[in-house]
Amino acid sequence: MATAPSVSYSMTVRLEVPVSGTAVSQLTTVVESSGGSVTGLDVTASGHEKLRIDVTIAASSTAHAEEIVAKLRGIEGVALGKVSDRTFLMHLGGKIEMKSKHPIRNRDDLSMIYTPGVARVCTQIAAHPEDARRLTIKRNSVAVVTDGSAVLGLGNIGPHAALPVMEGKAALFKRFAGIDAWPLCLDTQDTDAIVEIVKAIAPGFAGINLEDISAPRCFEIEARLREALDIPVFHDDQHGTAIVVLAALHNALRVVGKELGAVRVVMSGAGAAGTAILKLLIEAGVKHVVVADIHGVVHAARPDLVDADGDSPLRWIADNTNPEGVTGTLAEAIVGADVFVGVSAPDVLTAQNVAAMADGAIVFALANPDPEIDPAVARQTAAVVATGRSDFPNQINNVLVFPGVFRGLLDAQSRTVSPAMMLAAARALADVVAEGELNANYIVPSVFNEKVSGAVAGAVREAAQAVQAARAAAGGAGDAPAV
Amino acid sequence: MATAPSVSYSMTVRLEVPVSGTAVSQLTTVVESSGGSVTGLDVTASGHEKLRIDVTIAASSTAHAEEIVAKLRGIEGVALGKVSDRTFLMHLGGKIEMKSKHPIRNRDDLSMIYTPGVARVCTQIAAHPEDARRLTIKRNSVAVVTDGSAVLGLGNIGPHAALPVMEGKAALFKRFAGIDAWPLCLDTQDTDAIVEIVKAIAPGFAGINLEDISAPRCFEIEARLREALDIPVFHDDQHGTAIVVLAALHNALRVVGKELGAVRVVMSGAGAAGTAILKLLIEAGVKHVVVADIHGVVHAARPDLVDADGDSPLRWIADNTNPEGVTGTLAEAIVGADVFVGVSAPDVLTAQNVAAMADGAIVFALANPDPEIDPAVARQTAAVVATGRSDFPNQINNVLVFPGVFRGLLDAQSRTVSPAMMLAAARALADVVAEGELNANYIVPSVFNEKVSGAVAGAVREAAQAVQAARAAAGGAGDAPAV
Repeated sequence: MATAPSVSYSMTVRLEVPVSGTAVSQLTTVVESSGGSVTGLDVTASGHEKLRIDVTIAASSTAHAEEIVAKLRGIEGVALGKVSDRTFLMHLGGKIEMKSKHPIRNRDDLSMIYTPGVARVCTQIAAHPEDARRLTIKRNSVAVVTDGSAVLGLGNIGPHAALPVMEGKAALFKRFAGIDAWPLCLDTQDTDAIVEIVKAIAPGFAGINLEDISAPRCFEIEARLREALDIPVFHDDQHGTAIVVLAALHNALRVVGKELGAVRVVMSGAGAAGTAILKLLIEAGVKHVVVADIHGVVHAARPDLVDADGDSPLRWIADNTNPEGVTGTLAEAIVGADVFVGVSAPDVLTAQNVAAMADGAIVFALANPDPEIDPAVARQTAAVVATGRSDFPNQINNVLVFPGVFRGLLDAQSRTVSPAMMLAAARALADVVAEGELNANYIVPSVFNEKVSGAVAGAVREAAQAVQAARAAAGGAGDAPAV
Repeated sequence: MATAPSVSYSMTVRLEVPVSGTAVSQLTTVVESSGGSVTGLDVTASGHEKLRIDVTIAASSTAHAEEIVAKLRGIEGVALGKVSDRTFLMHLGGKIEMKSKHPIRNRDDLSMIYTPGVARVCTQIAAHPEDARRLTIKRNSVAVVTDGSAVLGLGNIGPHAALPVMEGKAALFKRFAGIDAWPLCLDTQDTDAIVEIVKAIAPGFAGINLEDISAPRCFEIEARLREALDIPVFHDDQHGTAIVVLAALHNALRVVGKELGAVRVVMSGAGAAGTAILKLLIEAGVKHVVVADIHGVVHAARPDLVDADGDSPLRWIADNTNPEGVTGTLAEAIVGADVFVGVSAPDVLTAQNVAAMADGAIVFALANPDPEIDPAVARQTAAVVATGRSDFPNQINNVLVFPGVFRGLLDAQSRTVSPAMMLAAARALADVVAEGELNANYIVPSVFNEKVSGAVAGAVREAAQAVQAARAAAGGAGDAPAV
């Protein structure tokens, strides 16, 4: 699958070029004949004989960028200067910062923001701990916590290398939901240690966003933290993805005129995201699901249902899917299916597999960066195709969900995040696409659609408040607005 | 000791007052005759019969503020509306926020700040971990870590109630040194747990500022973290205070014309700050020190030198001070002393004690909020007096030190913070007061003196680089610029 030139492989190349001759006119030609794209050309100095030109170029990969630079160097008379990588420039010194909301201009400011004035605020919170939600950053802050064990498609790259992703996540929290998030990249991958650490840092935050923690540890970490903490804990790789998938599926089914409770779904991948998608689809009312992993279809008689720890996400899948006891390969299971959801690996699906699906087939090929099948190929027979990529229609992108979900949770001062809240989020996201806008190439809105975050936040807030009201009515304070 | 009205006990009172009669003119009179101070008076609505007036008033305590409000209510014809506390208003929703350094306007921005572009930055750091200092917030970030066990003078108020102080600290880090600090208030007071947690969160930070952790746990926590981490760990309550005290002592000795190595110093208090001050004074060259705590002078024959844990800060003090084996009370020890440094409790020193000191006596009465002796009383016989209070000359204020110290450490990418760096910081801070400015009421500069942070940072950076150069020359990489 060819990749288009992208700003994420964008560089600015400084060149000295003779004024006479054809060198200048050759620059753009050389870049474009190499498959790159010139996105900017600035003359930064000019003399009688030479021009200094900064050319900004989008390539499609690091190797491609190097190839273009080599060709530019080959133009007669051109002297190559500094090559600056725009993405790296943007990351220099980090992408986020801490800001004070108030100026500290003089002694008066200092004595209210810090000592001695701050002591009265501390005393107030010591006497009324719930006031921490009113008088501190806890009102609006989320910890973005990772151990660097499953970062993007890069794998176990550790806490330092994970930091750029977590900073980006924090920036998105602010951009799309006004939330103050701070990254915590942990130098341990021990489940018990992570649980203890996150419990300990919780007082300063109103929510915990777990990020890029590998399966199956992520399941246990999340479950134990939810049990222990009085703030919501949300592993975005699982639930963020699941909510967008469900929203997209709602709309894809509207396009093909089928019902959630009636379709046959085949899934590929039983990792963190796969398991969460599966559970949310079942919560939403999907009745017929078959899940395949690298060893084929998961069924009750498979010998590997219990892993080394005795822990068993696969056992749960076997018990809750595949009612007809299908066995065999993904290729066999997919025959006649209405929906395919892949969160697995590149190229596990063929054109023939898609062609063998039912009429009005829906294919979500979400492996990143390379999908289970080239979406252009899948689209030859499928009615609706979605991927995780930004360069095709229907991108399943968590950014559509996590900011709004946390905004809703924080606004409700929710102690928990439940399947009901996630279902509400998915429905709200789906409904952002109006009936008149809906078609096979537009089942999810753009991440820059201004309605998205507010719609998701409102739905989650209402669902959280409903939970609080129900528990209060039942006489428990278990989900009342919390410290 | 009477306290002046302060903006840290400032409130805005909304009043409805009849236009006719003397009520309006009585407002200011009533406030001022009660010992308060009117700092603002705004008519916010006016009619034929009534005025609505917002009066901003500084009081000297919460009780005093309530007393003033009661007197205002007593003025004939005045109706009292909302009373707003300015300090609390400033804390609403927290005092700090997270900001993205770059706008996220469109898909191109998103693909460089987040996926897919960010993956290349992650890959770079995974291959070259030292690049985390260049390409992430680690370059400029400090964790402000507390367990809420010894917050200001308020004691063990826990992590939630400590948060306003830690936010204030973060705001000061930015204001005075451009550092991005984030507060972490830990829900544990277990030494082992705190050490493990701080070790685990270290990858995202270039330094750890421990804050308001009670003694003696703070000594062990700091020591173990310094041993374990490759970023500097600095308990501000100890070392920040010690550096300012040493700087102030340098200048006080210039005022009275004595030498550090020749003076007799008596200290009151052997807690976190006291121990750190003592150690730094000895590093700086002080030869004669006697320390007293609540049980009297610390000497080698005292039966309580080992605490329940077998751990013994007092034993260290007995072994390193009091060469003449003085015993007895603080009052006995102080006779003839040149310098008193108190970090203990209110009113442990009398006018007679100060009068019994040597000529040119220096008294640092640093207990907060109420000093060991009223500074006005001490000044009757002492040549130089300093306190921790902002309403007297010569305030010993950590804000003079911690921003610059961390700025210097971060600029040098130092792995450690050593006594040599602290001595350099103290000397640089002292030298901000020029020879022509120096006098008994000006031994430390104002926290708003623009030279302070840069001077301290420069001195610390040079000292840190000297350590790095020395270790590199010795063939060790132990203190080279670090990941």
